[in-house]
Amino acid sequence: MPITLKASYFSANSPNSSSFHEDSLIEISDNGQITNIIHQTASEYSERLSAARQHDHLITLAPGHFLLPGFIDLHNHAPQWPQAGIALDRPLADWLNHYTFPLEARYADLDFATPVYQDLVTEMLANGTTTALYFGTIHNSANLRLAEICSQAGQRAFIGSVAMDNPDQTPDYYRDASPEEAINKTQTFVQAIQDTYRNGFIQPVITPRFIPSCTTETLQQLGQLAQSQHITVQTHCSESDWEHNYVRERYGHTDSEMLQSFGLLNQHSVLAHATQLTTTDQSIIKTEQAAIAHCPISNAYFGNGILPAHELLNQGIKIGLGSDIAGGYTPSLYANLQQAVTASQIRQDGVDATIAADQRGVANSRISAKQAFYMATVGGATSLGIQAGAIESGLLADFQIVQAPPRFASLTPDEQLEQLLFRHTRHQIKAVYVQGKLVHEKEHNWYE
Amino acid sequence: MPITLKASYFSANSPNSSSFHEDSLIEISDNGQITNIIHQTASEYSERLSAARQHDHLITLAPGHFLLPGFIDLHNHAPQWPQAGIALDRPLADWLNHYTFPLEARYADLDFATPVYQDLVTEMLANGTTTALYFGTIHNSANLRLAEICSQAGQRAFIGSVAMDNPDQTPDYYRDASPEEAINKTQTFVQAIQDTYRNGFIQPVITPRFIPSCTTETLQQLGQLAQSQHITVQTHCSESDWEHNYVRERYGHTDSEMLQSFGLLNQHSVLAHATQLTTTDQSIIKTEQAAIAHCPISNAYFGNGILPAHELLNQGIKIGLGSDIAGGYTPSLYANLQQAVTASQIRQDGVDATIAADQRGVANSRISAKQAFYMATVGGATSLGIQAGAIESGLLADFQIVQAPPRFASLTPDEQLEQLLFRHTRHQIKAVYVQGKLVHEKEHNWYE
Repeated sequence: MPITLKASYFSANSPNSSSFHEDSLIEISDNGQITNIIHQTASEYSERLSAARQHDHLITLAPGHFLLPGFIDLHNHAPQWPQAGIALDRPLADWLNHYTFPLEARYADLDFATPVYQDLVTEMLANGTTTALYFGTIHNSANLRLAEICSQAGQRAFIGSVAMDNPDQTPDYYRDASPEEAINKTQTFVQAIQDTYRNGFIQPVITPRFIPSCTTETLQQLGQLAQSQHITVQTHCSESDWEHNYVRERYGHTDSEMLQSFGLLNQHSVLAHATQLTTTDQSIIKTEQAAIAHCPISNAYFGNGILPAHELLNQGIKIGLGSDIAGGYTPSLYANLQQAVTASQIRQDGVDATIAADQRGVANSRISAKQAFYMATVGGATSLGIQAGAIESGLLADFQIVQAPPRFASLTPDEQLEQLLFRHTRHQIKAVYVQGKLVHEKEHNWYE
Repeated sequence: MPITLKASYFSANSPNSSSFHEDSLIEISDNGQITNIIHQTASEYSERLSAARQHDHLITLAPGHFLLPGFIDLHNHAPQWPQAGIALDRPLADWLNHYTFPLEARYADLDFATPVYQDLVTEMLANGTTTALYFGTIHNSANLRLAEICSQAGQRAFIGSVAMDNPDQTPDYYRDASPEEAINKTQTFVQAIQDTYRNGFIQPVITPRFIPSCTTETLQQLGQLAQSQHITVQTHCSESDWEHNYVRERYGHTDSEMLQSFGLLNQHSVLAHATQLTTTDQSIIKTEQAAIAHCPISNAYFGNGILPAHELLNQGIKIGLGSDIAGGYTPSLYANLQQAVTASQIRQDGVDATIAADQRGVANSRISAKQAFYMATVGGATSLGIQAGAIESGLLADFQIVQAPPRFASLTPDEQLEQLLFRHTRHQIKAVYVQGKLVHEKEHNWYE
């Protein structure tokens, strides 16, 4: 059944601009697309409002509630969910070998995988994340289970079967046995997802873990596969000093240069972290129209520097936000959006008060709340090439309905948006829609 | 009626050590004091458990729930609650003049003040904050209303009537008319609180806003008042480049040096922020046994540097956490505790990847989750000189009962604590006790 939402909403237009409309009518078709938006000032407003009422299509948001686009998480290791919040004091290599790899190896067991993935997907929706780009594990059975769970829960998902076959950088107990196995497994997974989810609600992703974990042969063949089928690619890129230097030592080139040479860096690629990019790397990413998954919480722990998000946005590079479960400790993109702004301010101001103020940080680093909102929504959608991320006619109806905190003084629309984003708690997300379908509802009191 | 809580609990012993006890019996007297803690290994355990059951004193936490000490917020501008999350992109002076001072001026009206303070105190308790050190406004009537609200809601509070009389740095519409007025008002407020709350549950605080807002005469007289009566003092100290330099230009000395000379920096003082301290300042604070309110979220926006928390803790300087509503956007000390760790890691790693890794940050800056937990609890209690902050016999029964996230893999106690602190959402705080009294309860399913 089509529905009409009568709602006040915020939506990002560009990194520096977002729009606010009060009590607009958002008409949504049976197949979950926004077919029309009618603002209060439009001549047909009363007529369309009456029509929706008459056909019992109308849902009117309760006072103090706002409609926002669903958030899009561009980097999330689903299997690491049980370790979220743990051992963040370990350096990356140690963290992988002592916590992450032993944990991920357990997903050979579907009885272990199933409840974890169910809990994560439920929690992600409750946090307003309507689309996610997931790393799975090396196990296709568990990866397909994650796909089933996302499909059933109604979360749009891009899922990768992780390829990792370099014996030097992966443990015996958690590794693809050979390049052939890594490639065959990837092909099988891609085919299975494409056969099962023909409408594209769940999509397969070519997923070399990162260059250190993969042999050159696997990287080359995955690149060929990605290019021949125009499939989304995800991997880590210049995530930390260690990883950035590892690639330079192994190949004499940077991560970005090598990913490009393998055919893994193109307009369908999402590169996680990218804190250590050179200016040449930035040019490659811009020219190839690849995207960056900015994971500000994770980067504070493992990134050895703060992403120059302001500079990358100004260059027109595609950039969205990632929770990086479990390098980041929370699935909330609100928390990541807040940290993106906070970290950018720290980048601007520097850290060490014993250094002169004008030498301490990096000028013009600060991003605004609006820019962070853009990254969490339109930036993510652009990175994945999906028709979502904004509240506009023609796009998919992916929404979150959030209750504003009590208001004691008048606020401009910009201030209201800032407060929704920064005073946020998870329990203020009252309902979540994906493609026109209600997929999470905390309480029934969000509509009249 | 006395109660016995049967609970697994975490409590900090020192900055680097916390203890975990499973299913202990915590006996609480009528007046809200922990009189005895009996661990499972003790010979009298079964006997005391039976006795509590028999006398119907026993409350047993449901599985998956843990007892933590209540958190202590060392810096909170209660009147700024309506602007939390707004305009964080403004520099401090602009933020004060365009947002904060006009807002604070409205507290002349009790009808404006009352619902704001009620909402804030309710929200603080729901976030597990059992004691708070509040800045009020210049209006005694509103400050006394805040005291009433805290007393009725059951939140232990230290409240200051703000003194600010320097015409150069405060607006006409929001200023004490003279040093006499600032001092008289402070004395009246101190007396009123001491007369009304004889048990010390609400305590008055000498509160020069910060040196820039006050005349020298007021600073001197407030110092004399503080010293003659041993009353808690709160003020801002070396909060930002602007403020730190302002004091140096006005007096030729630092904030800490001047506060000491006025008698405002002693073992009863809590200094907010302190991001710009010199090594001499640090020595003064250590020698005088003053405390620092570390406000990591606020500092990212206004501090122009990251507090060297690790170094200050190692020196044995008293240090607790502050939300700094509304320089910080959230009342949650969980969020501040997380940011304290995150910011310390950024301080260690630096921000600018174009600088060589070993030159980028400040070595040995990182604090652990345990150190942050210590600051939010014992550090805060030590700073205020209250018998709280830990779960120990003889201390006040200030608790929060939190539900752990679903557990999919075994965790050590240290990992469990880390996950409780970092995977936290506000809705996991199921119940809050202050001085043995239940003051917040989200749901009834936290006990058996």
